[in-house]
Amino acid sequence: MARWEPNASERLALAALDLFAERGYENTTVIDIAGRAGLGKTTFFRHFQDKREVLFGDGTMDGLLAGAIAAAPAAAGPLEAVACALDAAGRQAFTPARREFVARRRAVIAASPELQEREALKGLGLTAAMAGALSRRGVPGLTARVAAELGALAWKIAYEHWSDTASGDDFSELARRALGELQAASASC
Amino acid sequence: MARWEPNASERLALAALDLFAERGYENTTVIDIAGRAGLGKTTFFRHFQDKREVLFGDGTMDGLLAGAIAAAPAAAGPLEAVACALDAAGRQAFTPARREFVARRRAVIAASPELQEREALKGLGLTAAMAGALSRRGVPGLTARVAAELGALAWKIAYEHWSDTASGDDFSELARRALGELQAASASC
Repeated sequence: MARWEPNASERLALAALDLFAERGYENTTVIDIAGRAGLGKTTFFRHFQDKREVLFGDGTMDGLLAGAIAAAPAAAGPLEAVACALDAAGRQAFTPARREFVARRRAVIAASPELQEREALKGLGLTAAMAGALSRRGVPGLTARVAAELGALAWKIAYEHWSDTASGDDFSELARRALGELQAASASC
Repeated sequence: MARWEPNASERLALAALDLFAERGYENTTVIDIAGRAGLGKTTFFRHFQDKREVLFGDGTMDGLLAGAIAAAPAAAGPLEAVACALDAAGRQAFTPARREFVARRRAVIAASPELQEREALKGLGLTAAMAGALSRRGVPGLTARVAAELGALAWKIAYEHWSDTASGDDFSELARRALGELQAASASC
């Protein structure tokens, strides 16, 4: 397994994870996080707008998903294009080397209502990014919204399974399977 | 049109709406809100856990939706049961007398990232409440999740139209129409 070399924003996220787990989100300050990462407060705010944001990366996921949908084969239907986006997330974000980090992050978010709120809003952003990218492929508006919601649900199901398990399952495979099951389920609504 | 007589939590919400619109969410305190409503801080915290919560009612919407799904005819399929929940929301929450309040509330939330976060989390709660109620009717897990997501999308589409318009459209009719269109769209994903 390749060693994961964190950059500054990832070092801040790792430090925040440690501190949130040790002391709780409420009892951790931005200065604490920057200090634990061996960085200054100014560097923190170059990367993140506030303390809540530190576990939500650099905002490139929206672009990653939208880019993968734009790059999907011209013949791909809406859900196949969404599957390409989930593949990209598996290749870039949910790699085996990041599983432990993601599992710890998930536990910390589950313990903090404030982080849950930020995560809920981020989820809406990801869904909107997928719907927008589908629309730009010419998918009709409502179909794009439904396909994006199914993609977001598949993401959630795959994410929960992938980050929970020690089985080594591949995120993209889990997400594609979930998406297929959701498509079948939507036909029986 | 029947006159709407606000109770204490509604008076607090109305006062908060006025103040958030006048000064912004950030520049308004709980004491300001309680004072404007002619009530004390203690009364505020009997109704709401924090300032963010004041525009999100008394938490009865989850129960209203779940109750309507439970009470749907035994023969109703998942989406028909969801439509019953949307009907109930239209009867209880999105009445003509409340349209102006809801429209102002929507504008204030759109102006505040913090309120948007709380709203995003509340949206997840409503979706989960519908999915749970469908499961208790014996709907298989994934089908319940998809039906609840389609219901949440129909809600959003109807809500945006209903609160935007001066046309006097009925919320339940808008929501049922949106749900039908989303069902058709899901077949073309």
